[in-house]
Amino acid sequence: MKLRDIARLLSAEAEGDGALEIHRVAKIEEAGDGDITFLANPKYAKYLASTRASAVIVSKGLPPPGAGAPALLRVDDPYLAFLKVLQLLEPPRDPLPPGIHATAIVAASAVLGTNVRVGAYVGNDAMICHGVVLGDAVEIGAGALLYPHVTVREGCMLGARTVVHSGTVIGSDGFGFAPKTDGTYEKIPQRGIVVVEDDVEIGANCAIDRATIGETRIKKGAKLDNLIQVAHNVVIGENTVIAAQAGVSGSTRLGNNCMVGGQVGFTGHLTIADHTKIGAQSGVHRSIAEAGKTYFGSPAYPHREAFRMQGALTQLPELLAEVRRLKEHIERLEKELPASPATSVGPVAK
Amino acid sequence: MKLRDIARLLSAEAEGDGALEIHRVAKIEEAGDGDITFLANPKYAKYLASTRASAVIVSKGLPPPGAGAPALLRVDDPYLAFLKVLQLLEPPRDPLPPGIHATAIVAASAVLGTNVRVGAYVGNDAMICHGVVLGDAVEIGAGALLYPHVTVREGCMLGARTVVHSGTVIGSDGFGFAPKTDGTYEKIPQRGIVVVEDDVEIGANCAIDRATIGETRIKKGAKLDNLIQVAHNVVIGENTVIAAQAGVSGSTRLGNNCMVGGQVGFTGHLTIADHTKIGAQSGVHRSIAEAGKTYFGSPAYPHREAFRMQGALTQLPELLAEVRRLKEHIERLEKELPASPATSVGPVAK
Amino acid sequence: MKLRDIARLLSAEAEGDGALEIHRVAKIEEAGDGDITFLANPKYAKYLASTRASAVIVSKGLPPPGAGAPALLRVDDPYLAFLKVLQLLEPPRDPLPPGIHATAIVAASAVLGTNVRVGAYVGNDAMICHGVVLGDAVEIGAGALLYPHVTVREGCMLGARTVVHSGTVIGSDGFGFAPKTDGTYEKIPQRGIVVVEDDVEIGANCAIDRATIGETRIKKGAKLDNLIQVAHNVVIGENTVIAAQAGVSGSTRLGNNCMVGGQVGFTGHLTIADHTKIGAQSGVHRSIAEAGKTYFGSPAYPHREAFRMQGALTQLPELLAEVRRLKEHIERLEKELPASPATSVGPVAK
Repeated sequence: MKLRDIARLLSAEAEGDGALEIHRVAKIEEAGDGDITFLANPKYAKYLASTRASAVIVSKGLPPPGAGAPALLRVDDPYLAFLKVLQLLEPPRDPLPPGIHATAIVAASAVLGTNVRVGAYVGNDAMICHGVVLGDAVEIGAGALLYPHVTVREGCMLGARTVVHSGTVIGSDGFGFAPKTDGTYEKIPQRGIVVVEDDVEIGANCAIDRATIGETRIKKGAKLDNLIQVAHNVVIGENTVIAAQAGVSGSTRLGNNCMVGGQVGFTGHLTIADHTKIGAQSGVHRSIAEAGKTYFGSPAYPHREAFRMQGALTQLPELLAEVRRLKEHIERLEKELPASPATSVGPVAK
Repeated sequence: MKLRDIARLLSAEAEGDGALEIHRVAKIEEAGDGDITFLANPKYAKYLASTRASAVIVSKGLPPPGAGAPALLRVDDPYLAFLKVLQLLEPPRDPLPPGIHATAIVAASAVLGTNVRVGAYVGNDAMICHGVVLGDAVEIGAGALLYPHVTVREGCMLGARTVVHSGTVIGSDGFGFAPKTDGTYEKIPQRGIVVVEDDVEIGANCAIDRATIGETRIKKGAKLDNLIQVAHNVVIGENTVIAAQAGVSGSTRLGNNCMVGGQVGFTGHLTIADHTKIGAQSGVHRSIAEAGKTYFGSPAYPHREAFRMQGALTQLPELLAEVRRLKEHIERLEKELPASPATSVGPVAK
Repeated sequence: MKLRDIARLLSAEAEGDGALEIHRVAKIEEAGDGDITFLANPKYAKYLASTRASAVIVSKGLPPPGAGAPALLRVDDPYLAFLKVLQLLEPPRDPLPPGIHATAIVAASAVLGTNVRVGAYVGNDAMICHGVVLGDAVEIGAGALLYPHVTVREGCMLGARTVVHSGTVIGSDGFGFAPKTDGTYEKIPQRGIVVVEDDVEIGANCAIDRATIGETRIKKGAKLDNLIQVAHNVVIGENTVIAAQAGVSGSTRLGNNCMVGGQVGFTGHLTIADHTKIGAQSGVHRSIAEAGKTYFGSPAYPHREAFRMQGALTQLPELLAEVRRLKEHIERLEKELPASPATSVGPVAK
């Protein structure tokens, strides 16, 4: 689609070559030739000079960028405009493959259960149990084992020897909604995929969301327990192990060989170093840059600090009593000093 | 069914017109003409004067109410008696609809996947993916999209343009069990429904329980992420957004346009004001009356208080050391005062 | 299989009767005649004298045990060797039963929905809803009710009148992986089963993992809410009630008649006394020996302590200010004492 056609559609002021062919939408830091992206958050303005996108949707008020900048489309709300382009260039795929779709390629050595829906490539010796649904253009690696009732949504890819336990959903929509001025929300299309690399095992009843654009990726050898939430555009590192009921918010990247306890939560957009250990029920709100450290608590602190705080907390009731006693002593001392001024000590916390 | 027949069945002492026709069970504050209800918790005795129920099951020891009170059935255990009536008046519906049930009405423009069980009304342009089970008397609004393996249990209603992701269960039984004297539990029948209003989106592998009686309701435009628990008789307000792995306990009502973080828990029977924001992993134990406030922590406090507490907690280890130093100073000061009494300062927390 | 054949397979140094017939693998404290087990953790060395196993795989460096010890197989890594034996003696069962398997026995009074896969014994009046998958050699008790999309994996047993809500998975693999020196993990085969006793009810979208060896057991009358995680080899006591989104880690044993709040987590290998109550969102890290107590907090403390700590925490910001005031007073007092030494009081936490 030509840039000028997109500009017309968005009622945008175009700066640059209207004849440019735009094929795809992408994130500003990942975009390449033929891609259109957007710049809504001033925090990302630095990418404008370096992006390899062919065109960027920006706010009307953005100061003119220097020479060599990509083509610009100026609009009132770059993000909402971007959503329109996303709908246009990446229409949703059909989530309803028929029985074994004509385009599906199933290895002769693969074993399919009954009531399996396959719009997919299924590799050698893969075993797809009853009631599994594999959406359009899914790829299942050799020797993979999908237990009953697994759902793999359109376009997602599972590596060789992956094991996915019952009830798990791979490729559900990421949770993205843009607030509108009337208090309602506009759904942000989730057009990316999930890539699960070789030798990954995912437990029962997990939810692994597809990326908004690009990929959610679970790297080689990672092991996920049951009931785990992996949000859109998350990356889980190689050989990282995550215990049950943990959740990783959008765009957070866990390093390799991390160990994450049960019921841990990560907020979004974090980067966690390799070999990090997170204690059960912790809440991780900040990136962790140094590899090999152990954190716990909600909010999570390095384990020594967290341990000291927790230990101190157990002494806090006694400390309150202690301070009250000290205060009485001081008051008594003051009275005993003939020249002491009659200052009020103020209220004691109680 | 006549009140006198119910009285006989419960071996109850009846006060009032035995010929009254009773059609339905209801909560005391919601009951109307033809309804029977119960009063077990003295906290709800105030409703006895105002209820519009035709009959109320009460304890034998309840003092006689004033004139104009509804008919009464006096029993030893009003709640267990009520459960019997519930079983009688609201027998469970068949959870096993055949293929496309004869009574199902499916719009010609709706698209049904394979292995779909439909005992339901399915509106225009709805898309029901593979392996979805729609129980008896379910209603699916126009343009709804149900991904593979969604279960909608009998009687539940989904509005127009609702989207429900894979593995989510709508209308599972509420978690209600009455303790018996031998330590075992009696199941409380869960005869209500779930109503999901228009434009709601619900993520993957959520569980939305049906009401005990009445409704669990998710209002227009609300957005729920994955792996969320919504208990019986909960109300989620319009345009309220809830992140993954949060849970809302029974009968709690969230206001409109709230934002709830991941892994948050609400205890039961709370009322949360509109535009409330709850930080991730918080535990909300009290109702929130003022709109537009932000809370966090477990237990949750207004964010300024929570922030001060959290900040203070990081200083606590140093504070313990500080108080120990101050104590030593005081002891030294005391020694220097010739007339100082030899009072013991007591043990220092350590 | 003869012990000498196993020894050859493991390249083990055998001590004892090579002609011994070995039939089964078992945990050292549960093994009996004909069983082989292993000893990797020195903590369990005490069991070597008392085990009734026919043979034990031990480390090469283990000192010779006394007379009457079982046959020993000495290897470099007892645990990895044990995994090999486990693979050998307990090959995985087929997770893919055909429609109604020839060996399945379904009571004439049982009701099966469509798309049900049964490799199972199904008792009288059991109701198996649409899309349920019952693996090979499963047993479903009389009067059980399995809602749509329940998965019961091979070999698991559900008692009479059990109710299992939609999407729940019973018998998924326990989460067990042995770290290898290159940072990757070796899957530990999960060959045990899940036993759900009579009158248990399990909510929607739960995950109940099968034991590594032996059983995961949910005892008579227990009630589990939605989205609950029960790890391998866990035991849930009779009439114990667990609220939604709680998780119990491997080998933990909850007593009878416990009440566990929502989003609670238990670490592994704990023993929790009967009638224990755990408040919502607590994290239980230690065994609880005394029955009938209430705990809360993360980490969980007896409720009085937890309550005092929580109360003290709310006073902490004021306490910090108070200590600062006291310090100033002391400094003033010191100045007023002519003979006071000019000691530094040190920094105030701020």
